[in-house]
Amino acid sequence: MEEQTQQEQASPEVHKRIRTSFDRQGLMSHLGARLTHIAPGRVHIVLPSRPEVTQQHGYFHAGATSAIADSAGGYAAFTLFPENTDVLTVEYKINLLAPAVGDHMEAVGTVLKYGRTLTVCQLEVFGVQDGRRKLVANGQQTLIQVIKPEQ
Amino acid sequence: MEEQTQQEQASPEVHKRIRTSFDRQGLMSHLGARLTHIAPGRVHIVLPSRPEVTQQHGYFHAGATSAIADSAGGYAAFTLFPENTDVLTVEYKINLLAPAVGDHMEAVGTVLKYGRTLTVCQLEVFGVQDGRRKLVANGQQTLIQVIKPEQ
Amino acid sequence: MEEQTQQEQASPEVHKRIRTSFDRQGLMSHLGARLTHIAPGRVHIVLPSRPEVTQQHGYFHAGATSAIADSAGGYAAFTLFPENTDVLTVEYKINLLAPAVGDHMEAVGTVLKYGRTLTVCQLEVFGVQDGRRKLVANGQQTLIQVIKPEQ
Amino acid sequence: MEEQTQQEQASPEVHKRIRTSFDRQGLMSHLGARLTHIAPGRVHIVLPSRPEVTQQHGYFHAGATSAIADSAGGYAAFTLFPENTDVLTVEYKINLLAPAVGDHMEAVGTVLKYGRTLTVCQLEVFGVQDGRRKLVANGQQTLIQVIKPEQ
Repeated sequence: MEEQTQQEQASPEVHKRIRTSFDRQGLMSHLGARLTHIAPGRVHIVLPSRPEVTQQHGYFHAGATSAIADSAGGYAAFTLFPENTDVLTVEYKINLLAPAVGDHMEAVGTVLKYGRTLTVCQLEVFGVQDGRRKLVANGQQTLIQVIKPEQ
Repeated sequence: MEEQTQQEQASPEVHKRIRTSFDRQGLMSHLGARLTHIAPGRVHIVLPSRPEVTQQHGYFHAGATSAIADSAGGYAAFTLFPENTDVLTVEYKINLLAPAVGDHMEAVGTVLKYGRTLTVCQLEVFGVQDGRRKLVANGQQTLIQVIKPEQ
Repeated sequence: MEEQTQQEQASPEVHKRIRTSFDRQGLMSHLGARLTHIAPGRVHIVLPSRPEVTQQHGYFHAGATSAIADSAGGYAAFTLFPENTDVLTVEYKINLLAPAVGDHMEAVGTVLKYGRTLTVCQLEVFGVQDGRRKLVANGQQTLIQVIKPEQ
Repeated sequence: MEEQTQQEQASPEVHKRIRTSFDRQGLMSHLGARLTHIAPGRVHIVLPSRPEVTQQHGYFHAGATSAIADSAGGYAAFTLFPENTDVLTVEYKINLLAPAVGDHMEAVGTVLKYGRTLTVCQLEVFGVQDGRRKLVANGQQTLIQVIKPEQ
């Protein structure tokens, strides 16, 4: 499925919907995170290394790692949701497998099971140094589809 | 135990150790988070509301909520650790129970089970508006005690 | 709240609904588990020690511990649900804090946040030996309320 | 990796070590579970359908699903551990994705990250009916390697 989703691109409407929502997330721009891939059921978010996202040893903070993982999973689910809906994170669990080091981190959210009410995503975060990727965190997330209030 | 730990204060050495570590976390100051309570086995962290920590609807981002929860739990464990050690998050799980709104959020990390290798903490995050607190997130975290490398 | 829920009893209708459902769970009777307390938002299940519920060292198996924790949480949520509904576990996370030993185990499920769609419970399992209780597992669970199909 | 681990078999010593431990788990034989595959970093456990493992609607109970998932992950880790050690579950999280139905369930535990102290596994449970497999549960588990006490 990896190959397929890497090539398959989401529709322009979905792209726009997700970029619009992402741009409204004050936290993502404050951290310096960028959306780098939007496919049906899969979204990538990249976070470059900078002192503002570190923990006490200079590695990426687990909170920063989790923030981009949570957003990647949420938007991966959102690519599959109908027009008038929105996505909320119900819960997630994440294991920090290795020190989060690299010139940037890449979070990959992938839909494992889509449902009309609940959707479950796999979360992966890679530390990338000079193009070499290493899995530094792995998680699992539950999301809920809610009807968007009229505006 | 609530009352007891609220009153009991950690020793000046522990206070200093934790404040020093916290001040090195680039992410915490970048978000605007502050340590507000350090007791044996319990730490509070406060995050004021500002556009830089929001998600797409203007609520606190789950990533910001998780970041202060993770740090509060990690430091709660760290208050009980011996001198020459450090703390790392192994994993955590968090449920986002209600929209994270308020003039600030308060994360409370509490040690549930201390162990020489692994320590388990409860994580709670409250949205606080005009002094009224509401539980907006609840989680559980596993931490590992590691020997600090010589410097 | 502990005191209150310990004293407060669920209505006879709720008692009956939960006992009827519990009696249909083949696994619970196969393990030898018993419902011992049903209060609004809180349910206890007891599992006596026997070779049939052990892991390789003779302690209670994590699967047995989890099974009664999951059922206790599910029924705790179910005490608050309306008549024509049913409860399903969405997910749970459990930490095994200490070897599960004792003449019996007691699982306590407590509703942390009730919602029309999703309910979140705290799960605790105690090993009990000669009346002394020790926390051996702690978890967090998400449940969904579903409309019961017509029969 | 799937293909590789399906073909690769664990050494006879590892096979024997795991079968011996499994046979000591009173719960596994009480449920009727069987070890069906032991490869380095991957173990399968099968649980046939029978009334003794059901919940109130006649599906497999989440506790039974979790029990075989937990054991599959634990033994997957154990295949990689050195001689004089033992494995304990630290914690796990599991999402129940679909009703657990079928003539049997198959739990697959796969090591995601091996470490000298902590190992993280992916847990999958499939409902199998007439040879067709459907993913019914997905989880993530943390295990600890402990030195075996002298006997």
